[in-house]
Amino acid sequence: MARPALDFWLEYASTYSYIAAERIGALARDAGVTVRWRPFLLGPIFQAQGWNTSPFNIYPGKGRYMWRDMERICQSLGLPLKRLELFPQNSILAARVALIGFGEGWDEEFSRAVYRAEFGEARNIGDATVIAGILEGLKRDAKDVIERAQAADNKARLRSETEEAQRLGIFGAPSFITSDGELFWGNDRLEAALAWAKR
Amino acid sequence: MARPALDFWLEYASTYSYIAAERIGALARDAGVTVRWRPFLLGPIFQAQGWNTSPFNIYPGKGRYMWRDMERICQSLGLPLKRLELFPQNSILAARVALIGFGEGWDEEFSRAVYRAEFGEARNIGDATVIAGILEGLKRDAKDVIERAQAADNKARLRSETEEAQRLGIFGAPSFITSDGELFWGNDRLEAALAWAKR
Repeated sequence: MARPALDFWLEYASTYSYIAAERIGALARDAGVTVRWRPFLLGPIFQAQGWNTSPFNIYPGKGRYMWRDMERICQSLGLPLKRLELFPQNSILAARVALIGFGEGWDEEFSRAVYRAEFGEARNIGDATVIAGILEGLKRDAKDVIERAQAADNKARLRSETEEAQRLGIFGAPSFITSDGELFWGNDRLEAALAWAKR
Repeated sequence: MARPALDFWLEYASTYSYIAAERIGALARDAGVTVRWRPFLLGPIFQAQGWNTSPFNIYPGKGRYMWRDMERICQSLGLPLKRLELFPQNSILAARVALIGFGEGWDEEFSRAVYRAEFGEARNIGDATVIAGILEGLKRDAKDVIERAQAADNKARLRSETEEAQRLGIFGAPSFITSDGELFWGNDRLEAALAWAKR
């Protein structure tokens, strides 16, 4: 029998994707589930339902709650959190770079470093020099990677991943999809998604 | 020291409030936390943010997901679930009756019976004869209770409870608020809310 598998759909601007990215490694290992990290963009999906920014900005009460909820969760997990002035951040470059990393096996490490910079240190991941700094920290040739990330074929690949997310019914991040097509939404559903993948 | 306490803000039209209503009794008992059930209406709160129905109707992808998520949760807890044609249901009468029940100590039992009728049997709780039937099942004088529920002072009380919910920052249901004012949103946060109440 094939090893159980789970697709982890993540958006670099998403606060709860940060928590999931920190938790999924150990939980998946314990569960014996192979996880594929699939970066995508929520922006086009939000736009399709009439939102031009995060629902946490559109609905201020929900936004205030989300940041307080994040504080409590990060505190309980011992994760750093700094509230962002600019939210959501522009996550396109990070997502494009992650797709390059996927082909070379450093996408998970890169993703966690992006989230730590963004939500742990309140750095702007929309700034190419921040992404370059993260890549250098991972001993990658930042200039070369960013050039390949911005090439037309890689841009098209991110668009196609985002379209695939939309086709699969994804409307938020993080989302998890099992091999048999069950969709689970939110960091809260990570354990349930892993359990389903193992059935 | 006073026994730890938690306010459980519930909306009778809310699917996830059903799950929380089924779970909170045993969990609160184990945690040694006293729970006060506080029915309110989400309608006015949704209207204030520009919604004229449930977000699960406004955003169909989210709605489809919610019903599937409910199926999985109800199955895992052994709870009955029938998908409603009419959603959300009109919950005003149920909430008014529950306030009468609160004063007489049968509000929890009534609440669980309402949720079972609505989500377990797909009955219309907006229909006064359904509410009367539930009251009769609890050996209450249905006609008398409904009359008192529809009296001006009780209607005003529900409006004031809903305003209080809004003032407290509540934007969805179920919500939980500890004595020191921490807000937790969603059935997923029930355990966290109980743990906070005990701190």
